[in-house]
Amino acid sequence: MEDFTFYNPTTIDFGKDKEKCIGKHLADHGVKKMLLTYGSDRIKRNRLFDTVVKSLAEHGIEYVEFGGIVSNPLLSKVREGITKARSSKVDAVLSVGGGSVLDSSKAIAAGVKYDGDVWDLFLRTAEIKAALPVFAILTLAATGSEMNPSGVVTNEATNEKFWIASPHTFPVVSIVNPALMRSVTRDYLVYSATDIIAHCIDAYFTASVQPRFLSRLTESIINTVIETTEALLANPGDDSARGEFAWASTQALNGLTFSGSSGFSYPNHMIEHALSALFNVPHGAGLSVVIPAWMKWYHSRNTAQFERFAKYVFDVTTAEEGIVALENWFNKIGTPTRLHQLGIKEADLPATIDLVLINAKQFGIADIYTRDAVTDIFRNAQ
Amino acid sequence: MEDFTFYNPTTIDFGKDKEKCIGKHLADHGVKKMLLTYGSDRIKRNRLFDTVVKSLAEHGIEYVEFGGIVSNPLLSKVREGITKARSSKVDAVLSVGGGSVLDSSKAIAAGVKYDGDVWDLFLRTAEIKAALPVFAILTLAATGSEMNPSGVVTNEATNEKFWIASPHTFPVVSIVNPALMRSVTRDYLVYSATDIIAHCIDAYFTASVQPRFLSRLTESIINTVIETTEALLANPGDDSARGEFAWASTQALNGLTFSGSSGFSYPNHMIEHALSALFNVPHGAGLSVVIPAWMKWYHSRNTAQFERFAKYVFDVTTAEEGIVALENWFNKIGTPTRLHQLGIKEADLPATIDLVLINAKQFGIADIYTRDAVTDIFRNAQ
Repeated sequence: MEDFTFYNPTTIDFGKDKEKCIGKHLADHGVKKMLLTYGSDRIKRNRLFDTVVKSLAEHGIEYVEFGGIVSNPLLSKVREGITKARSSKVDAVLSVGGGSVLDSSKAIAAGVKYDGDVWDLFLRTAEIKAALPVFAILTLAATGSEMNPSGVVTNEATNEKFWIASPHTFPVVSIVNPALMRSVTRDYLVYSATDIIAHCIDAYFTASVQPRFLSRLTESIINTVIETTEALLANPGDDSARGEFAWASTQALNGLTFSGSSGFSYPNHMIEHALSALFNVPHGAGLSVVIPAWMKWYHSRNTAQFERFAKYVFDVTTAEEGIVALENWFNKIGTPTRLHQLGIKEADLPATIDLVLINAKQFGIADIYTRDAVTDIFRNAQ
Repeated sequence: MEDFTFYNPTTIDFGKDKEKCIGKHLADHGVKKMLLTYGSDRIKRNRLFDTVVKSLAEHGIEYVEFGGIVSNPLLSKVREGITKARSSKVDAVLSVGGGSVLDSSKAIAAGVKYDGDVWDLFLRTAEIKAALPVFAILTLAATGSEMNPSGVVTNEATNEKFWIASPHTFPVVSIVNPALMRSVTRDYLVYSATDIIAHCIDAYFTASVQPRFLSRLTESIINTVIETTEALLANPGDDSARGEFAWASTQALNGLTFSGSSGFSYPNHMIEHALSALFNVPHGAGLSVVIPAWMKWYHSRNTAQFERFAKYVFDVTTAEEGIVALENWFNKIGTPTRLHQLGIKEADLPATIDLVLINAKQFGIADIYTRDAVTDIFRNAQ
């Protein structure tokens, strides 16, 4: 058991119709005018936008719209949002969408309070000393962004997919209504499942100190994701399963699963960030290709933990059997497990590996993830 | 999956020597003068008091001592603390001790800000609208008070053992250093284990809606408590086991295990509060007597969940086998499982049952826990 500090002040307001409470939450926190960020116009077609605007009006809160944020969100859009937030003199940001909208909103919120270019905050050449308060209505459960301070953005000029995190960028309130997630497509459901599992297993397998309590918590999350993904594939209207899926997703990356462990890293995310930055593949689809390949490369470094995973997640015995079981499960739910399924060819690999090596530096694991190592991992995914 | 709101702003600063950071934490929160609450003089003999005072001095923070808080803490002492806090014009409370000191500190902190008698806040005839900020250095892991807003106090005039809870009574920062818990006696270690298990199983068994995710989390906590209790009985110097034990204890009652469940109650605590109020037995010792007796009485109402407990905690099959396994484990670690082991006689039962029936009203379960029901439960503990 290692030393840690746990702090997570986000309020999660979870359940049916909770989006109707957003005006009250904002008013309770003294917000008068905010930037309403979102992705596509789907939130207008499905009436969520109307519901939000009505709730704001009931509490006399003004808003300025900022739509068009895309998956694997872009730095240029964050810069645009900062300009708009400043010129509109908003005092908060409300994200209505999934992880990409929320991550961009955190970056906008921090960028508004920083005099230089926001990318400095991603490069760690400047520190986040303040941010506008961020509120969220979640429409996709996957990234855990609703209860953590992180935001991942891609710099399209350099293809770097980096992140910020600060005590100032926790959402103040995140509304999680499973019914709002019914519109998530089958593909994005399985990609989300993969993303959640990835958030769990990176630390679970790589930590040099990993208390069994944290392993148990992590297995609880993974087993819940597996069970509820299957329930939702069978019946997309199962809001109870969707709720458990969403809450497990939140727990996977709110700090709990690694408070007490140490020496861990995020190799699967590190590698995948190169795939989604270069080929704009869905993050979860990239992860389901990377994870089994990485596990096959890594497992002999921590055999006991891979055997534990095999036993408590898939009820099989050896490390190898556990890896095959996870890969089979990915195939069963229909998320890709090979590079060619992402449209990535042999000829693309050198440039991809170059970017992985850059990412490895930001993730602090360049010593382990050398060109040879990354080449071997990608070979397992061919 | 039911609707819920999760909010827990407490910072847990966990690890070796973290008590030396208390002055900085208080200074960071603008505290100038505080009431330093504690139990016995043991914290002076073991130098913890000196360490704390030194850290306060380094940050120019004044303090007023308020010692002598006992286990199963008393209302009269809370009233005395409120008077002292007011006359000393402190702006915060620092609890150095276990759950009893911390619970009393929360009551003092809320009472200072309330014009009437503090017991009104326990009776819910008045609402907690403000409280002094509470900080904690924990010396015993059991109650979970370090990361929740609850405080339990006994009114010695009426023998009522009631609780307060409010968004204002979360500790701001709780310091948890497992090494400070080395001095916990063997008896109090096993009583603490029982208390933590009780915090988990009350909702686990009684909820009308209990997501499997929450059952898994709860089993993770229970299995960790069982494993680390045995490790600590074998080797009290195992700080890593002590750390896992402490962190599991925190998780057992910080809101996580029941966020998403509904219709649950706390029957074991409700019954035990009568035992510790009337006979001043250690809370955990009372619980280990009540729990198996209650389980034998209750299990047929939720057989599937008792079978789940049997399987995932003790690797046995039937509900009855799971109950026997837990009772045997209590016997093995040396915490009592029969009323006579607490010195409670047949002749004491009528008055005890009377008090349980009063408690049942405060816990909102008087319809289930009738005189006949409570009599049957106590019969199982004879």
